[in-house]
Amino acid sequence: MRPSGRTPDQLRDVRITRNYTKHAEGSVLVEFGDTKVICTASVETSVPPFLRGKGQGWVTAEYGMLPRSTGSRMQREAAKGKQQGRTVEISRLIGRSLRAAIDLTALGENTIAIDCDVIQADGGTRTASITGACVALADAINWLKANGKVKGEPLKQMIAAVSVGIYKGEAVLDLDYAEDSSAETDLNVIMTETGGFVEIQGTAEGEAFTPDELNAMLALAQKAIVELSAAQKAALAG
Amino acid sequence: MRPSGRTPDQLRDVRITRNYTKHAEGSVLVEFGDTKVICTASVETSVPPFLRGKGQGWVTAEYGMLPRSTGSRMQREAAKGKQQGRTVEISRLIGRSLRAAIDLTALGENTIAIDCDVIQADGGTRTASITGACVALADAINWLKANGKVKGEPLKQMIAAVSVGIYKGEAVLDLDYAEDSSAETDLNVIMTETGGFVEIQGTAEGEAFTPDELNAMLALAQKAIVELSAAQKAALAG
Amino acid sequence: MRPSGRTPDQLRDVRITRNYTKHAEGSVLVEFGDTKVICTASVETSVPPFLRGKGQGWVTAEYGMLPRSTGSRMQREAAKGKQQGRTVEISRLIGRSLRAAIDLTALGENTIAIDCDVIQADGGTRTASITGACVALADAINWLKANGKVKGEPLKQMIAAVSVGIYKGEAVLDLDYAEDSSAETDLNVIMTETGGFVEIQGTAEGEAFTPDELNAMLALAQKAIVELSAAQKAALAG
Amino acid sequence: MRPSGRTPDQLRDVRITRNYTKHAEGSVLVEFGDTKVICTASVETSVPPFLRGKGQGWVTAEYGMLPRSTGSRMQREAAKGKQQGRTVEISRLIGRSLRAAIDLTALGENTIAIDCDVIQADGGTRTASITGACVALADAINWLKANGKVKGEPLKQMIAAVSVGIYKGEAVLDLDYAEDSSAETDLNVIMTETGGFVEIQGTAEGEAFTPDELNAMLALAQKAIVELSAAQKAALAG
Amino acid sequence: MRPSGRTPDQLRDVRITRNYTKHAEGSVLVEFGDTKVICTASVETSVPPFLRGKGQGWVTAEYGMLPRSTGSRMQREAAKGKQQGRTVEISRLIGRSLRAAIDLTALGENTIAIDCDVIQADGGTRTASITGACVALADAINWLKANGKVKGEPLKQMIAAVSVGIYKGEAVLDLDYAEDSSAETDLNVIMTETGGFVEIQGTAEGEAFTPDELNAMLALAQKAIVELSAAQKAALAG
Amino acid sequence: MRPSGRTPDQLRDVRITRNYTKHAEGSVLVEFGDTKVICTASVETSVPPFLRGKGQGWVTAEYGMLPRSTGSRMQREAAKGKQQGRTVEISRLIGRSLRAAIDLTALGENTIAIDCDVIQADGGTRTASITGACVALADAINWLKANGKVKGEPLKQMIAAVSVGIYKGEAVLDLDYAEDSSAETDLNVIMTETGGFVEIQGTAEGEAFTPDELNAMLALAQKAIVELSAAQKAALAG
Repeated sequence: MRPSGRTPDQLRDVRITRNYTKHAEGSVLVEFGDTKVICTASVETSVPPFLRGKGQGWVTAEYGMLPRSTGSRMQREAAKGKQQGRTVEISRLIGRSLRAAIDLTALGENTIAIDCDVIQADGGTRTASITGACVALADAINWLKANGKVKGEPLKQMIAAVSVGIYKGEAVLDLDYAEDSSAETDLNVIMTETGGFVEIQGTAEGEAFTPDELNAMLALAQKAIVELSAAQKAALAG
Repeated sequence: MRPSGRTPDQLRDVRITRNYTKHAEGSVLVEFGDTKVICTASVETSVPPFLRGKGQGWVTAEYGMLPRSTGSRMQREAAKGKQQGRTVEISRLIGRSLRAAIDLTALGENTIAIDCDVIQADGGTRTASITGACVALADAINWLKANGKVKGEPLKQMIAAVSVGIYKGEAVLDLDYAEDSSAETDLNVIMTETGGFVEIQGTAEGEAFTPDELNAMLALAQKAIVELSAAQKAALAG
Repeated sequence: MRPSGRTPDQLRDVRITRNYTKHAEGSVLVEFGDTKVICTASVETSVPPFLRGKGQGWVTAEYGMLPRSTGSRMQREAAKGKQQGRTVEISRLIGRSLRAAIDLTALGENTIAIDCDVIQADGGTRTASITGACVALADAINWLKANGKVKGEPLKQMIAAVSVGIYKGEAVLDLDYAEDSSAETDLNVIMTETGGFVEIQGTAEGEAFTPDELNAMLALAQKAIVELSAAQKAALAG
Repeated sequence: MRPSGRTPDQLRDVRITRNYTKHAEGSVLVEFGDTKVICTASVETSVPPFLRGKGQGWVTAEYGMLPRSTGSRMQREAAKGKQQGRTVEISRLIGRSLRAAIDLTALGENTIAIDCDVIQADGGTRTASITGACVALADAINWLKANGKVKGEPLKQMIAAVSVGIYKGEAVLDLDYAEDSSAETDLNVIMTETGGFVEIQGTAEGEAFTPDELNAMLALAQKAIVELSAAQKAALAG
Repeated sequence: MRPSGRTPDQLRDVRITRNYTKHAEGSVLVEFGDTKVICTASVETSVPPFLRGKGQGWVTAEYGMLPRSTGSRMQREAAKGKQQGRTVEISRLIGRSLRAAIDLTALGENTIAIDCDVIQADGGTRTASITGACVALADAINWLKANGKVKGEPLKQMIAAVSVGIYKGEAVLDLDYAEDSSAETDLNVIMTETGGFVEIQGTAEGEAFTPDELNAMLALAQKAIVELSAAQKAALAG
Repeated sequence: MRPSGRTPDQLRDVRITRNYTKHAEGSVLVEFGDTKVICTASVETSVPPFLRGKGQGWVTAEYGMLPRSTGSRMQREAAKGKQQGRTVEISRLIGRSLRAAIDLTALGENTIAIDCDVIQADGGTRTASITGACVALADAINWLKANGKVKGEPLKQMIAAVSVGIYKGEAVLDLDYAEDSSAETDLNVIMTETGGFVEIQGTAEGEAFTPDELNAMLALAQKAIVELSAAQKAALAG
């Protein structure tokens, strides 16, 4: 039995709210149950130095948590003057994943900066961030097209992400904090809407996991990505 | 005529939403028109080293802005490894002001850490932060009392804050970004609910301001603090 | 009775020594009693990136204290790798105030960098810094004019600064450390030589202060600025 | 055809040299072809603050590259004052993986600090690091046992790591730099000697990868881990 | 002919002013011609962690230059967040040299922190700093003795320092900036009052220097240390 | 008797291995007994900003120690975000010394970056670094000449370095860690192959040293430089 009473293959309630703040070209509040992340996409009509003159664009991402988004207050990274290793790792994961959604040449010499800020954490913040950020990214690309900054179609495909794990010996989907903190294995899966793998990251927290367990977890993720892609599409159509 | 159509002595719509996030002992979303700040108050049952063994508590505060809370994206301070001078200055102002609301001896050896994170900025973020944070602070103190961590009454009085300024030659209340960015003088006023001054900070952006202008601005602020105190009380009663 | 035996409206001995060090375009030792600050003004014939090509100049300021300028040694900020919040706050105040003295367009594309380094502290270092720095600034502008770098008159007006406070229930002028450390309210007032307010910053350290107390403090400051302006003029004429 | 002329399932020459430097409790030079990493294991008979008094030990890891271990010189991270995101990410991966080899309770209140410093890079530095570091870790544990610092057996199992990828449409094992820089997918696999997964990290560099491709890559990795485990055992027996 | 008109073996005017600022246990303004340094010695009645419980004291030193102590303004190290390599090197030299003057066991568990802050630079700031700091150190030790904090005599001997160099092919003493910036060789010599070498640091700026040149420079330094020791004694007697 | 059984004027076994790693234009492993340093020279065909357009080149150097190159593990400077003072000081010494070997004008607008990374330390790491780095520098210059990047001869002369000291009252050559940690005086001598002094740095660790002791140490160093120069030449001829 899962602490939340969900079945092993059941997602939490997923809500995607567009135009959540007013300044950004794409702004989304994404909620996976009690996990809530503000994802914004900011357009800059230039590229970083290492790409200048190469005729392509860039997508970059940064992740952060409000100090009291968690059960006990974390030190503010800006005040400490240093980001935690975990923050750096997740920022890199989000950026790398979202670039898989984009044809950087079609984007032209524009940069889209993604910010994912967790305002309330209850497990799965990185996968919620990617799922929400891809909607904000789509809105920013629509803004670029509407404003004549790009001509072709930079969005190759939507991507979405979900966590799966082995909890009390069983593969379960979309772990909340109660499960995540005691799971034996935690696997984050980022996929395209058409079912290709963009990134998989699995870690045995206690015992090593078996090929069978890996397959069981991947099957749950594949099913969930279909639902998450539908939720993204519904939000973008709304 | 003000850009927003307000009269010179008119506040923007002020909304104070308690229990905005679930983990903090006090959590408030404060809105002054389009300025939106999440204020949390986190209890730690210990004090910083410089206060250990002195039988009193502490209130500290930190302020931040989400990178795209503003019209153009600002660099993330955590990634840059350094807070801007403005951030440091505002954090210090919030902490100093809130300590004026508290009897630190009655608080006992507990610390309340205030975090004010701006999710959408439209002028007046520091005064909205103080007004909202004082409500979060009151909730945290209620939590301490309900949990038997303090016996007396650490909350001496509520405080609230508002900005006033000289805009096109006239004293106006609660400047939004359109006014703030072209005001001749900007004055932040922090007061107790009983009408005492906790802090005043006035800056001539262009020409120096006169004693008469100062008095006109202070009068607007005094009137507004009464309204803001009422809004705080209503929220706490809600 | 004040610890120093002064009357409530009495300044400490103010001394302004020009050409204190030999390299800077403006170099002043300013003393308010035992508070001693070296203020230098350094000319650079260029502007920061954000002003290039805009046909105007800039004035910037930095403040520091020698580690043993105070009663107990403070950690050296350069060795620690980080400035204290108080240092950042005062640097910003000095720069903002001095820019009110200058017509930045008449300054042309030149920058004047002000350094205020406290060699001995006894209260009121920020207001002494501003008062001395404005004389160094005037010298630097004279250097620019004498060397044909500017044609018009960038100095709109001299500014000066003083602290006032409520000490043992009474408004007093120019607090030394003995008073400052136990004052109920501390107010820094920066004014033009013609009596306009450039900046006011007042903080209730204990109880909130009343409108009457504010008016009493401002009256003391207004009187003192006349004396300080005269001292500046005398120094510049010397 | 692979640039190196290897078959798809062929490892590079793997050499593991123990006692490479004289000070560390465990010191290994590991070579996967031209990739060369010095792995040391340093024993400290205490634990970090967060573990004090809990009766268990800790394993931590740091990774670095000499500035000219690569084709063009990289900036020295110590001089820059900041580690790259990639460095942080790999350090965390190494530490997390090695902890899976250890029974932290049996280790007692001792810490083993692993340092992996790349002196020459030709692809696969993180997997070579883990494979070599586990041998250094075993030596450090033998030192602890020989010196009476631990009584039981903290080493649960050896772990080893290898990279696999999709190169020109085919799954290949142990990519060198020439392959790695143009691979479509890169997957790092860390396994126990008994065939359990400790960590898998796969990234689509260009197109998403399919479940079949994932399975082909995992099969190559599973076969290679058997060979790497044998090489580790031979080194430890030598 | 030297730019200053001095003979090759002639020191600049050396002035040592004690009790220059009022807070420090030892405070000296040292002047070698136009080079002016404030040297303070601050007593702390404890030792750094690495010396606790060992029954000995410590002497540490830090060096800094005011931003406009030099011909063109240098960036403020505290604002930049990093000390220059030169600053670190000189701070270490001063501390190491002064510890040679002290019997650390006789000092007991006390620390003396030396701060040397250059307010005007004209060559030879590090040697002037050491010469002045030793007088401040003596005053601090006298303070410790007068206040009953030490019983024996921690001051083993006074030390002093001077720079010598090869300028236009000739050995010269106490180089000012005009000479220093074009000298072929620069040698800093720190000696005890009894003629022993504490530290020598010589650098060929252009051509290598010969053993004969080294001897000529050392002879000048030995003669000068006698004069500097006399000046220190006179100041301490004054 | 020396701990190693060497005579006072006896160097440790010196080994210089060229082409130690494959990427750098010059790569040397230098060993002085158990002290082992990897020295690489990296060519960049540009110069730092302060030299642009001046028609000359630059040589820069950085020094580091692997965390467990020493008897007890040192904190990794890259992880700490700050280099130790000793590291900065040695990096500056190496760069300054090697520039004495080079005609910077003949080098043209090219930079050679030297990295000296200690993989095993047993005393004398800075002097071993300089001796090895000069061979790597010669190889890099040969690379520049072979690739037509420079026309003349930038290498004016080889330099080499050795430490000497006073150990148990006697002058000894090339101190290992056992001697270095208890020596009364430590002197580092950098010389040209033709016997000129490039840099001398001597420090009295306990008692001051006498002119006679200085001469005895210098004589040992002069003899050793002849041997080290021969070893460099043999390596370059090999």
